[in-house]
Amino acid sequence: MKIPRWKKAEFEEIEYEPASIKEILKEMKSISELIVDLAYSAILFHNKEIAEEVRYLEVRMDKLNYMIRMMAMLAARTPEDAEQMAGILQVAEAAETISNAAGDIVKILSLKLEHPILPRLIKESDEVIKKLSVDEKSKAIGRKIGELHIASETGVRILAIRRKDRWIYGPSPEVRLRANDSLICIGTEEGLQHLKKFLKGELEVLE
Amino acid sequence: MKIPRWKKAEFEEIEYEPASIKEILKEMKSISELIVDLAYSAILFHNKEIAEEVRYLEVRMDKLNYMIRMMAMLAARTPEDAEQMAGILQVAEAAETISNAAGDIVKILSLKLEHPILPRLIKESDEVIKKLSVDEKSKAIGRKIGELHIASETGVRILAIRRKDRWIYGPSPEVRLRANDSLICIGTEEGLQHLKKFLKGELEVLE
Repeated sequence: MKIPRWKKAEFEEIEYEPASIKEILKEMKSISELIVDLAYSAILFHNKEIAEEVRYLEVRMDKLNYMIRMMAMLAARTPEDAEQMAGILQVAEAAETISNAAGDIVKILSLKLEHPILPRLIKESDEVIKKLSVDEKSKAIGRKIGELHIASETGVRILAIRRKDRWIYGPSPEVRLRANDSLICIGTEEGLQHLKKFLKGELEVLE
Repeated sequence: MKIPRWKKAEFEEIEYEPASIKEILKEMKSISELIVDLAYSAILFHNKEIAEEVRYLEVRMDKLNYMIRMMAMLAARTPEDAEQMAGILQVAEAAETISNAAGDIVKILSLKLEHPILPRLIKESDEVIKKLSVDEKSKAIGRKIGELHIASETGVRILAIRRKDRWIYGPSPEVRLRANDSLICIGTEEGLQHLKKFLKGELEVLE
């Protein structure tokens, strides 16, 4: 049986990973911004793969919150430090609460409703979220997101990139795509189909 | 003394407003998506005006959650209905949890730290969030967001529009701007300055 990725993360031992408070806090902020969109998308499109990403990020967030608490305690030497750290932990706690709530949202996918009405209730536009992969023969490889004019040519927005075990949230136009990147994209079916062909190497240019 | 808008909302009596479960749920979804970004922006730029919007949305969310619980109970007639409604309330509850967490984030603005380090820790890019108003003499009035090419001309994204007492979240390109709309925008200082001039009527065209 294949163990889902979020389960693996859950059973990993929490070790002290040397990282800065800044890095951890930025990751917590990014996850909490992304995870709400992902959670609604998962239930909107009944997409178990995206729901699994939500679970994975939720577990990652727990670990980050643990790490930041530890680091804050080690860093506080004076009452002024302690006050700064208390503020930081308050934000970190809120970020974790947000990710737990996102996890609660995707849990309703496990309710066995025959005709769930929820997706119809929250559907707002024709946009959908899809995960697209960059194929090894795509002309997108090595190119910056900005220079590909993805948004203006297809109307698609890249919410996040998964590169091996790392996430790039809300990638800037300067980020270069690599083979096997997974892009979490939002757009119309049509725009996404078009982009998919380009990322698979079936189209030479995106226009 | 001027009573802040979110306080007014808190003291308003909760009445049974006739609205559909669909409308309420969509608003809850939109608020929970927007409020996380707004909360981080408020602390990042130490912006009390945006913090006040967060508080306002948090109070609005409480009210929506109350309304949807009431409606769900009135709507459930069969065990199948009840199961559907339980799923809906679970999502509504999560949306409220998210907005409360966002409220916790902005609370740290009331800590009286002389040199708060948090904004420096989470600052990721040169983008800032600003509220811009559409002046009565602006050429933007009556024009669709899409046809103004705001994104391609200035790099600015409109996160939400406040129109009198109503919010339009993530406005589509089809939305027409009106005089006195407040736009919550994200972009570089330069892009925002440029857009501001156009919205104030100091520029005839945006290019």
